[in-house]
Amino acid sequence: VSGRTLDINAWYAAGRLTAAGLHVSRITSVGDDHRKVTEALKKALRDSRFVLVTGGLGSTDDDLTNEIVASALNRPLCLDENMLRLIEKHAAVRGIKITASLKKMAWMPDGSRLLNPAGTACGFCIEERGVRLYFLPGVPDQMRYLMDKLVIPELIGTFRPLPVMRQRIVKLYGLNEPNIAEIFKDLHHAGGDVVLGFYPHFPENHITISLRGENEKSVTQELERVEQAIERLVGPYVFAKGIENMEEVVGRKLSDRRLTISVAESCTGGLIGHRLTNVPGSSVYFRGGVAVYSNQAKMNLLHVDPKIIDRYGAVSDATVRAMATSVRDVFQTELSLAVTGIAGPSGGSTDKPVGTVHVALAAIDNVFSKKYVFWGNREQIKLNTSMMALDWVRRYLDGHPFLPSI
Amino acid sequence: VSGRTLDINAWYAAGRLTAAGLHVSRITSVGDDHRKVTEALKKALRDSRFVLVTGGLGSTDDDLTNEIVASALNRPLCLDENMLRLIEKHAAVRGIKITASLKKMAWMPDGSRLLNPAGTACGFCIEERGVRLYFLPGVPDQMRYLMDKLVIPELIGTFRPLPVMRQRIVKLYGLNEPNIAEIFKDLHHAGGDVVLGFYPHFPENHITISLRGENEKSVTQELERVEQAIERLVGPYVFAKGIENMEEVVGRKLSDRRLTISVAESCTGGLIGHRLTNVPGSSVYFRGGVAVYSNQAKMNLLHVDPKIIDRYGAVSDATVRAMATSVRDVFQTELSLAVTGIAGPSGGSTDKPVGTVHVALAAIDNVFSKKYVFWGNREQIKLNTSMMALDWVRRYLDGHPFLPSI
Repeated sequence: VSGRTLDINAWYAAGRLTAAGLHVSRITSVGDDHRKVTEALKKALRDSRFVLVTGGLGSTDDDLTNEIVASALNRPLCLDENMLRLIEKHAAVRGIKITASLKKMAWMPDGSRLLNPAGTACGFCIEERGVRLYFLPGVPDQMRYLMDKLVIPELIGTFRPLPVMRQRIVKLYGLNEPNIAEIFKDLHHAGGDVVLGFYPHFPENHITISLRGENEKSVTQELERVEQAIERLVGPYVFAKGIENMEEVVGRKLSDRRLTISVAESCTGGLIGHRLTNVPGSSVYFRGGVAVYSNQAKMNLLHVDPKIIDRYGAVSDATVRAMATSVRDVFQTELSLAVTGIAGPSGGSTDKPVGTVHVALAAIDNVFSKKYVFWGNREQIKLNTSMMALDWVRRYLDGHPFLPSI
Repeated sequence: VSGRTLDINAWYAAGRLTAAGLHVSRITSVGDDHRKVTEALKKALRDSRFVLVTGGLGSTDDDLTNEIVASALNRPLCLDENMLRLIEKHAAVRGIKITASLKKMAWMPDGSRLLNPAGTACGFCIEERGVRLYFLPGVPDQMRYLMDKLVIPELIGTFRPLPVMRQRIVKLYGLNEPNIAEIFKDLHHAGGDVVLGFYPHFPENHITISLRGENEKSVTQELERVEQAIERLVGPYVFAKGIENMEEVVGRKLSDRRLTISVAESCTGGLIGHRLTNVPGSSVYFRGGVAVYSNQAKMNLLHVDPKIIDRYGAVSDATVRAMATSVRDVFQTELSLAVTGIAGPSGGSTDKPVGTVHVALAAIDNVFSKKYVFWGNREQIKLNTSMMALDWVRRYLDGHPFLPSI
């Protein structure tokens, strides 16, 4: 609660529990404070079927979990011989003396069941009025290990949720949020028991489709149906499904067709090349790029005719087409991308406001180009530009027309 | 609560509140569920003096905050004309139609006070039975902006902890975490009432120095003293203070000396150019770069001698020096950077494991180069490489030697 550390344990546990088909109703963080931990624990006991507590199991003064649990549940602290032996063994291996602080860890609330009694990562479990409580260490590695190895299997065994839980993710680009909200409304009606989630992820929008049910086949069929409904509504805007990102999709499509690509970047300064090369194995299709941030560089490296820049400006369709054609020649690739624009905050004019960007794609037999006006700050304009350029490759390879953003 | 997204808002807010001398007693996360949000809200009202709620203010169906607050506090939802105008203005700028979903955002609980009524990031504030409730958007950028600009100053004004509260941030690069922890230990003793915070921020490490006190002068003097103590310990590793980032520091130093720079990137694929051009006005000093991802490109664009690549390999000191010298000529800049390395996951060998990176800096009278072996995944290796290259420019301009990472 001091903001000093980011709570990745709760995030990890929630993800694992959700994936296992269990429902997380609340996540609470409190400081190392007797009253607050007690209160949070009692509240959890009142309205949950299982409770997961992390942290406070160590040997320092602010590790209070055992004491607090004992007093909150009115159980005495008892010396657990098993735990004591584990501590002694662990100390011996590391050449540490057994201190009172270390011994403290072996005093556990009456009725505790030790988790993982053979290993070094230790936690315990208590049943109280039909509620199962797990206490896990706060050290992320140990917590994750016990979670995956012991807690999740036990919980699934005990609570037997509807056995099958599946989730799909559909990723959209080029649709504005309010439009997705409108489309979403129709989907909610068509969805039946399917749970839809909507996550803006600038400049992308992700839709999750989840369903829990009795058997794999019916769950899969129902998810399929909703996914197809989404595709009918916004098909060309769906750039990826599942965990793939834009650069992976583009990379996969280029690899599949054995095509190579190069890039000429002005306002993005290298971002498109950076994204393409985030994908392992991208050297198969990415030959390289140039960041031509000055007019001089556009002329020297890409031989863009100074007359074109003079007449139409560096941010123009004519310039971006010349950049794309030339970089394709320089790197001898089948495809090339070029972008030029005004990322701001300065440099805009009435004619060409900040956010004005031209994108071009040069292929063997054609050059495509188009002007966009993106909204946002400098980094958002750069990100949107790189996203649009990459999406052009996807659309070109998929045979989609270059639809306007709606 | 599904574990799909990591809650960085709570972490950020807790950190800022703590640094401001306020005490966070509990952090609760619940899903988009009417009953659970209501319950959490009512509990917070019972035992807090101020409550901060993030998320659920948008235009989609699962944005329920306004409705839930209205019903939990027994207040009607009223159309806020100010908010409606903001939405209309925002929509007009982006060329979006006003839909019912968008309009929904302007229906706010009776008695709400709009935060930041002139800007695009919006939230609101309500007083209920002596408790101040803030409702902020879930989008991290907007939430942070409102938090820093409005909420924290208001809270400090209302709850009046010691009148003066100052915080400084010192950003380190090139020191490993365990070493900082050791250095930190000494600082804790020397620090007096100063609160030190330590935030790893891969690949950077940030130290915050905060102090609350009676008057500006004594607080500033004390912070100065601790900041100087840090500088004595790790001076050359301090690349920035306050909100500046590495590319801004490098940009400022280049601007100040009217120097220009160009980059030749292999394993980073464009990331260094991207970072340099994230800084507004970077066209003054950044002329451009090349991403030479294939050996062919290294030879064609940068005229790297094929014999050098044959003899020493593409990942070698000889190659990176040739790249740096050549790109400096191509773009006619005073300085240039070059990097070549193995970002993985494949491509490593016993001699040159994944993470092996060569960095070079070419200046008017000299070329510096050095080999590093970075640890991490592909993106981490790329990030560390770009960071190290940029840090070389800073160190060169500051006259620091090229210290090894410790």
